[in-house]
Amino acid sequence: MKPAVFTLEQIEGVLKNLDPVQAVEEGFVAYSEGRVTVPPVGELLFQSPPGDAHIKYGYIHGDEYYVIKIASGFYHNIKLGLPSFSGLMLLFTQATGQLAGILLDEGHLTNIRTAAAGAVAAKYLAPKRVNRIGVFGAGVQGRLQLRYLKPLLSCRQVMVWGINEAECLHYKAEMEKEGFSVQVCLNGEDIAAQCNFLVTATPAKQPLLKAAWIGKGTHITAMGSDTPEKCELEPALLAKADIVVGDSLQQCESRGEIFKAAAAGHFNIKDAVELGNVISGKAAARSSEEQITVADLTGVAVQDIQISKAVFDALTGSSQR
Amino acid sequence: MKPAVFTLEQIEGVLKNLDPVQAVEEGFVAYSEGRVTVPPVGELLFQSPPGDAHIKYGYIHGDEYYVIKIASGFYHNIKLGLPSFSGLMLLFTQATGQLAGILLDEGHLTNIRTAAAGAVAAKYLAPKRVNRIGVFGAGVQGRLQLRYLKPLLSCRQVMVWGINEAECLHYKAEMEKEGFSVQVCLNGEDIAAQCNFLVTATPAKQPLLKAAWIGKGTHITAMGSDTPEKCELEPALLAKADIVVGDSLQQCESRGEIFKAAAAGHFNIKDAVELGNVISGKAAARSSEEQITVADLTGVAVQDIQISKAVFDALTGSSQR
Repeated sequence: MKPAVFTLEQIEGVLKNLDPVQAVEEGFVAYSEGRVTVPPVGELLFQSPPGDAHIKYGYIHGDEYYVIKIASGFYHNIKLGLPSFSGLMLLFTQATGQLAGILLDEGHLTNIRTAAAGAVAAKYLAPKRVNRIGVFGAGVQGRLQLRYLKPLLSCRQVMVWGINEAECLHYKAEMEKEGFSVQVCLNGEDIAAQCNFLVTATPAKQPLLKAAWIGKGTHITAMGSDTPEKCELEPALLAKADIVVGDSLQQCESRGEIFKAAAAGHFNIKDAVELGNVISGKAAARSSEEQITVADLTGVAVQDIQISKAVFDALTGSSQR
Repeated sequence: MKPAVFTLEQIEGVLKNLDPVQAVEEGFVAYSEGRVTVPPVGELLFQSPPGDAHIKYGYIHGDEYYVIKIASGFYHNIKLGLPSFSGLMLLFTQATGQLAGILLDEGHLTNIRTAAAGAVAAKYLAPKRVNRIGVFGAGVQGRLQLRYLKPLLSCRQVMVWGINEAECLHYKAEMEKEGFSVQVCLNGEDIAAQCNFLVTATPAKQPLLKAAWIGKGTHITAMGSDTPEKCELEPALLAKADIVVGDSLQQCESRGEIFKAAAAGHFNIKDAVELGNVISGKAAARSSEEQITVADLTGVAVQDIQISKAVFDALTGSSQR
């Protein structure tokens, strides 16, 4: 049996008619219920030129497939006119080990499943009345976040922060075509003062948001930090929050905002809850407009499993989601 | 850039004109010289039906590619008319992380690189005059071993042991067409008494060869044991040997014959040498016809790296080996 091989173009074609948010949401519930096997991430590091490759893999018990994802980041590629990120996803039949499909997504599905996780967090944690959305990071994920929040939030007023104004102006031009009104602002404190829904999607290693800036009723989704080094939120901010949610508390012990805040002595990981449990109702979602909520998304293999299955099923017409 | 995808048929086509033994030999030297990064093996286990998938990956420093291999064993597949083993190898450019090639080898290249390692061991450890070759295991690897030993040893007299006579008779018929004279023998002691070159290529969990059976001047290549459970040689046999070689002493600390003999208190891993060092002359190869030598092959990712590069280069015409 030969595996089906699909290109990025074919994958983008089916993504238009697919709800990755629901697939990812179901994945988080399965994960928090202990129905998912996710071994530690495999890693290869390169020095010259600098780069990294990561292998995330696993399966939902009793499911049709197991999934192995390879994703890489080579930050000097831009000099060669190549994208920094690339990758692919492989689906194998759980009953036989046979390779069923290869998704040559070039890293795109990792961006999509990350954006979908942001939407899931918003669904359970955003205040009812979002007055303005503040986006830190004017890159691919900053764009995808707005697209995936659009069906969930009626707010179309956006403030964007980036590493330079030119990047932010590109972002503004692109997102205004999609129905948002975007104000460029390179002062994080001003954004925090005017927005009660904040998303950080940067590779920052120093906090972008300070605890003192955050007012009552604000929700923050921090999705940039996926290593022990990266950090977007001041540790004291987590202590100030009423609800702190992690995508995988096991992973949050060693990377991301919860890890950083715990290491700094400002937060006890026992006070965090897992996203899958918030979805299933085992842990409390936002219950008032006054609460400060934080979602720390480090990226879990179950998201890759769910997005690849949904895309593969759509490509092969083997099921209706 | 789209990766090149090759099928098993295409791979088998180029294997005919390729020397995987040399490629694997060079890989072992690089490994023993510390020029190869090989992270721990990734693993997924399945209960029902029973199966396992392994991810072996790594790279030779400064090489063109890094390689990720996925191989699986699902032992109930035979009931479905499917092969038990399958897998693929992926080559990525080290400088950019771009996926260069996909080898849909269905596990075949794992068999080839394993057989090639057996040939490398024979090259440095076989006695000059092999009177008879004893093969334990009448399966795929038992066949490949003879094929890869053929250019190295002039001996064509073979004794074969298998789990049943029918399997051995199939083996005999097939290998006699290839120029060997094969005697079926289900008594291991008789084989050990008559052969001074022995290969074990089985998934045995109890020793097939006892120390007392092994005479002076015998070489044994044990290639079946690649887990902490499997075992083909009685622990005391390693104590009796003059030279004990492991493919990766790091791996031999936790699996294979050396591990088993050390755990039983019959052998100290410090008395073993690494195959790459034997090849490069840093450790002694066989130096007399009297010595007993043992090679314990557990399978190292550098073999996968080397075989996949050799095959990919041949398929794309990008170099002459």
